[in-house]
This record gives sequence, structure tokens and C-alpha cells, in this order.
Amino acid sequence: MKQSKLFTKTRKEAPSDETSKNAQLLIRAGYIHKEMAGVYDLLPLGSKVVENIKEIVRQEMNAIGGQEFIMSSLQSKDVWTATKRWDDDVVDVWFKSTLNAGGEVGFGWSHEEPITEMMKSHLSSYKDLPAYVYQFQNKFRNELRAKAGMMRGREFIMKDMYSFSLDAEHHEDFYQKTIQAYQRCYDRLGIGNDTFITFAGGGAFTEFSHEFQTICDTGEDEIYINREKGIAINDEVYNDDTLKKLGVTAGELEKVTTAEVGNIFNFGTQKCADMNLLVTSEEGKQIPVYLGSYGIGITRVMGVIVENLADDKGIVWPEEIAPFTIHLLTFGNNENIFREAESLYHDLENAGIEVLFDDRDLGPGQKLNDADLMGMPYRIVVSEKSAEKGGVEITKRATGDVEFVDPARLIAYFTEG
Amino acid sequence: MKQSKLFTKTRKEAPSDETSKNAQLLIRAGYIHKEMAGVYDLLPLGSKVVENIKEIVRQEMNAIGGQEFIMSSLQSKDVWTATKRWDDDVVDVWFKSTLNAGGEVGFGWSHEEPITEMMKSHLSSYKDLPAYVYQFQNKFRNELRAKAGMMRGREFIMKDMYSFSLDAEHHEDFYQKTIQAYQRCYDRLGIGNDTFITFAGGGAFTEFSHEFQTICDTGEDEIYINREKGIAINDEVYNDDTLKKLGVTAGELEKVTTAEVGNIFNFGTQKCADMNLLVTSEEGKQIPVYLGSYGIGITRVMGVIVENLADDKGIVWPEEIAPFTIHLLTFGNNENIFREAESLYHDLENAGIEVLFDDRDLGPGQKLNDADLMGMPYRIVVSEKSAEKGGVEITKRATGDVEFVDPARLIAYFTEG
Repeated sequence: MKQSKLFTKTRKEAPSDETSKNAQLLIRAGYIHKEMAGVYDLLPLGSKVVENIKEIVRQEMNAIGGQEFIMSSLQSKDVWTATKRWDDDVVDVWFKSTLNAGGEVGFGWSHEEPITEMMKSHLSSYKDLPAYVYQFQNKFRNELRAKAGMMRGREFIMKDMYSFSLDAEHHEDFYQKTIQAYQRCYDRLGIGNDTFITFAGGGAFTEFSHEFQTICDTGEDEIYINREKGIAINDEVYNDDTLKKLGVTAGELEKVTTAEVGNIFNFGTQKCADMNLLVTSEEGKQIPVYLGSYGIGITRVMGVIVENLADDKGIVWPEEIAPFTIHLLTFGNNENIFREAESLYHDLENAGIEVLFDDRDLGPGQKLNDADLMGMPYRIVVSEKSAEKGGVEITKRATGDVEFVDPARLIAYFTEG
Repeated sequence: MKQSKLFTKTRKEAPSDETSKNAQLLIRAGYIHKEMAGVYDLLPLGSKVVENIKEIVRQEMNAIGGQEFIMSSLQSKDVWTATKRWDDDVVDVWFKSTLNAGGEVGFGWSHEEPITEMMKSHLSSYKDLPAYVYQFQNKFRNELRAKAGMMRGREFIMKDMYSFSLDAEHHEDFYQKTIQAYQRCYDRLGIGNDTFITFAGGGAFTEFSHEFQTICDTGEDEIYINREKGIAINDEVYNDDTLKKLGVTAGELEKVTTAEVGNIFNFGTQKCADMNLLVTSEEGKQIPVYLGSYGIGITRVMGVIVENLADDKGIVWPEEIAPFTIHLLTFGNNENIFREAESLYHDLENAGIEVLFDDRDLGPGQKLNDADLMGMPYRIVVSEKSAEKGGVEITKRATGDVEFVDPARLIAYFTEG
């Protein structure tokens, strides 16, 4: 895309009421726009990043048998009354409204109950199991405080998956498969090394749930980790009992601040029993189904990536997430140089490589600052100076490493690894 | 995909409270699930249809320079107060709620005001124009009645585009380009022949707006059309004045029932003047921007396609919209036949053709009924009988035309047109 056509502009300052680093950088670079605290629009660049994150997660969920669909945001009171979770004293993040036709409606802060209810129309026999379904859907949560930018939104995008299994063995098997799929997701998202699967509070159904926690200074959680043993324990279940169960001592653990980027939750058969999702077993009995739920906060991950990978010049995107692989810059008024840059732009795009071509009539300083702020993995400069040094100048955003490459070899540079 | 893995099941009867043909068929075939009147989940098949419709519209909007992004659903009261449209007496379809942190919020029934407000952060000079932005976004409308299935939802997906232009000439030019792009959309969506660009009420800013109306018995509009002259007039502006202006007489017009599948609206400079979206002109003056808004009801189009193309056996999808191009059926207990079907399934998928393979252990009657109900463009039967007749049996869902094709030629049949 030609940058002159991109309607968003970079800016030197973030809005004064925006205190989080991730939102400050994303607003300054033109990825998002703030509607109100905890509510952001995804501008073209931001929308591309979110789609790229979704695509990674989609591929991994499909690989373990997930089927994608979309639930509505509007939810009926009845569905939640059955499990007593309509009550604002039980769930304090509801946005509710009134139907003009009469009655109350809620806006989905979770979809566990509506999905379980919906599945009753499709699951009736052991032959219908297992079923794994997932969606990318806006969640609405009426948070009292929302000051962490994309990391705690009142409206945010979540991937939520649900597994419906016949027995404990199949249930456990898929639960473990999902853990592995999640680890592949975080690796591909560029935060794998900082992300720990963490024992957390299990609620009514199980002793522990599992969270995926990424070390991040602006996170809201504190966990105890042992990197060598690969053990991580959330503060909420950090006690002698837990340490003993996991075979680790307090002295072996390090306390770190983290952001929760995913969680998986084992409901056993309790939720389906409560909601009357039963199937006929092979022996002809009516039995409740095993339910697991598996979340990844898509927009929160975007915020965490910015927090963790950015430097003092701006955002640094991992290659698979960046809206464009290459930010192509050209300097000066030499028409031949501009034409060469434009021709490289077309060649790269034709080779299937996504390029943002800064064709604007601006000085090198401003173009370089914008490129650093916006964070594409590769910056290519086409200028008289670069030509003198043997071609075009390629700078890796993450490391600052510079190479000069013959324009004739540029496509090969990117396609041959 | 193997049908045995698809968690949705077909059903003989729609829920008794569902009176619209489109929702009855879509529920019975497992495309959607009803949450409440006017609110439907998109199950895997329905989600694929919606994505296919979106992709057609996306391609056409990109082709005229549109940039995709996503606004939030949560909207601030302030933005709408400026144009007096927060008031429930002015806009009667608001869903509103209360922030736990204090203050009211709305759920987007439209995004005209928030988008205009957001653009103030990015448009400041005549050099920044034009800008064309669009999104696919849930809209929430608190309709008093919602009985038309996917055709009038309380929650539905809309493509809304907005053009920001410097002067009347560029504005008008893009308006006309959009009309052509819309016509290409409806052609590709299979309803082009029944869709008319229609003069409708213009509101405060212009004499007329333009609607795209599709002839459809269950639609809510009545328009007057002259097919030869390509003129269509909405009932609301059907009067002597309009007839005179358009150079047509009442006798030349035919009254038809229609569904509105799109509309385009010219705000002139009024909205931007009201909302203070000004740019510096080439002469250094502060001038308001020309605004156009352009909608296509994505989920409504899905409903209209079902209403108009279905027959008494079920849904009939146009090829570009169908979740799968081919529904592959195999009958009987002959293992060789099943293996041949399975091998064709893999060959077709490897050739990039989307196939739903009915590998379930069911009789021919039930499989054929399901295939008719679900509406894929091509049904292929692999059976002993088809082998005797020279290969596999291909039936076109729309026409019922049958051909027998040598399995070795099957890929070529679909890829060579």
C-alpha cells in the first residue's frame, strides 16, 4: 500500500488521558483510536494486526479439530438465570439493556451459557461427541477501571473455544492437546519465551485451572515461576499445599509480574448437568457432557506484544503479525530513485510480500521516525546514498542490523529466507 | 470437510415461533441458531456463508479505494449529543446501558457520528482527502418487531462505508463509483437481476437518497419500477413531483414488494459542519468536508438470497456464496465405493475445491434430503448405480440438471469450467 493513501497519520503525542504504553504507541502510530477508556477502534493498521493474530490462532484451533462459528452478542436473561449468573452480585461486569418490545437483554461478557444452551439443539447422542467449537467475538465487560490500554478493555476481542466430550479420558486428552496448541500460538506470536502455563484457582469444578501468563511489567498478575522446572503458580493459589502438590519449594521460585494472555478451564460434567445438556450413552442412559472452555485474549495479546517488544523509538512487530513485512522508504528528489523504489514496490507486492511504500513528500527524518514508530520488521531505504553503497539498505527493526542488497536480489532475499 | 465431523444437525421442523421462510430453512439446515427474536448465532455453515458474502463486498470496496477498519460497538453519549441523535425520541432503536464507572453508553446502531468524530484526528488538510473507509460491524437496533428472520435483526452485520471528499465534484464522482460497485456486488451475490437502484427520501441534506431494493415477497418496502428504463421509486417519494423530475408516468410503472439490501446517502457538507470536521483548503481556509455513507446489510442479503432462490426442497446457494461448492454423497455398504468417494474427496480438496463429504452411516433418502435442504451448488453421488451409468452423478442444485462424469475427469470438470 502507498502510505500517501493511508488515511491515518502518526502523531508525536498520545492523548493526555492515555497512560498505558501500549495504547500510547498504538494511537501515535495510527493503529487504534480511543473512543473512551477501555474502548478502542481498530484503524486499518490495527485491524490488520488483529486479523493476523486471529489467523495464527485460527490455524492452531483448526489443527486440533475446532470448528469456527459466531455467537450473538445479545443474550437472553433466561439462559443465564439457570446458572444464577444473571445476578449483578454474582457477575459484576454485565452491560444490560431493555428491549423496546419488553424484557431485559445482556451483552455477552462470556458465551459459556449460551453456547451450552445452543449445543442442546445439536448434541443428543454419544455419536455426536466430541464437538469442538470456537469463535472470535467481541466481549463486553463493564470494568470499573480500564487504564491498561488494549490489556483490559470494556470491549475486546477474545477467541473462546469450548470442548464437549463424552468421558473424562477424551476430555483430558483434548485439554492437553489445547495446552500444546496454545504454546504453539504464543511461540508464533513472538511471546512464547515469556509465557508460562500457570496453576490458578479452579473454582467450583476443579482444584486448579490453567492460565497462560506472560511476563510483562504492566500486567495485573503476580506469579511464582521456576524456569528450569517449567512450573508457574498464580499468587491466588500460592500456598504450602500447592507447593507440596507440585513438588517445589518456595526457595526455588521467582516472583514476576505478568499479564494473563489465555486460560483454560475444566468444568467436568457440572455445567452441562446444571444446564441439562445430556446425551444418550452407548448403554442408553442420559448422561451429562464434559465441558472445557479455552480463551485467548486477542486484543490483549496485541497490547502485550507492544508492551514487551517495543523500544524507545516505537513498536516492534514480529514478522507474522506485522501489518506489512516491509516499510519501503525513498528519500530525495531524484526521479530515477523514486521510480526505482516504486518499481521495487510493485515487484515485491507481485511476489506476495506486503509492503507499505512511503511515497510521501517528506524529509528523511520524518520518514525514518515514522518507520521506527510503526514497527514493520524490515525497513528498506532506496536513496542515492544507498545506491552508492551497493543497492538498497535493509534494516531489521528488532535488532537494527543493516545490510546493503542488490535490488535484483531483493525478492530472493525475502522469499528464499 | 467430513459431514460426520460437523457438529450441526439438520432438522425436519423449525422452532414453532419462527415464522420467516429464510430463518426456518437456515435453522433446519444448521446454518443459524435463534437466540431470541431478531438475534441469531452463525453456526459453522452460516459463518462461512457470511464470510463469503463479506469477501465479495470487500473485494469491490477495495477496488474503489476503500480501507477496511473496525469501529467499536460501545459508543459515547457525547458524540451523538452533538447531532441531537442520542435522544430516544429522535432515534428509537438505541440499546443503552450504564457504565459501572458512571455515565451512559450506547451500542452502535450506526457509526456515522463516531466515524466522523474519529476522522477529525486524521484529516486536517485538503491533502488528506479523499479518504474512503469501511467496516463490517455488528449493528444493534432495538426493533419493536423482529419477525423477518435474517431480514430484520436486532443484531446484524452491516458493511458501512464512508467517503470524505474535498468538493462536490469528487464527492459525486465517488458516489457514482459506489453505485457501480454495489451493482457488481449484487450481481456476484446472485440477486443482480432482481435488484433496482431506487430513488428514496433524502432527509435534511438532499432531495433523494438511493436505495438498492431487491424484489422479494417478504420484503417490507413497496417500490414502483420500470424495468426497461431502469427507474425505481420508493413509495415514500412516489408523487407527481418525483414522476415529473424522473420523466416517467404512473402508467409506465409497476408496483412490487421489495427488501432494501443497500442504501447510499449524501450528507453534503452538513454533517461535517455540524460535527466540526474541517480541513484547510488550498487557499488556507477552514472548510467542512463532503460526507457520503454507503451501507449493505450483509446478513439481510443472506436472508434475501434464501427467500428468493430456495425451492420447496430447501436452500439454493449461488456458487460464490455457498459454504461448500460440492456436496459429495456416497450410498451403500460397498467398501470400494466408499473408498473411491473418499479418494475423490481428497483429490477435490487438494485441487482447492471446497467439498462437504457426507460420510455418515445413513440411507440414501436422508442424505439426498439433507443435500437438497443445505443447498450446495453441486451434488455428486458416488454409488454402485452411478458407476453402472458411467461414473459419478453430478446434479446442479439450482436447475436439477444431471450429468454422469468419469471420476478421472472430475477435477477438470470443476477447474476447467
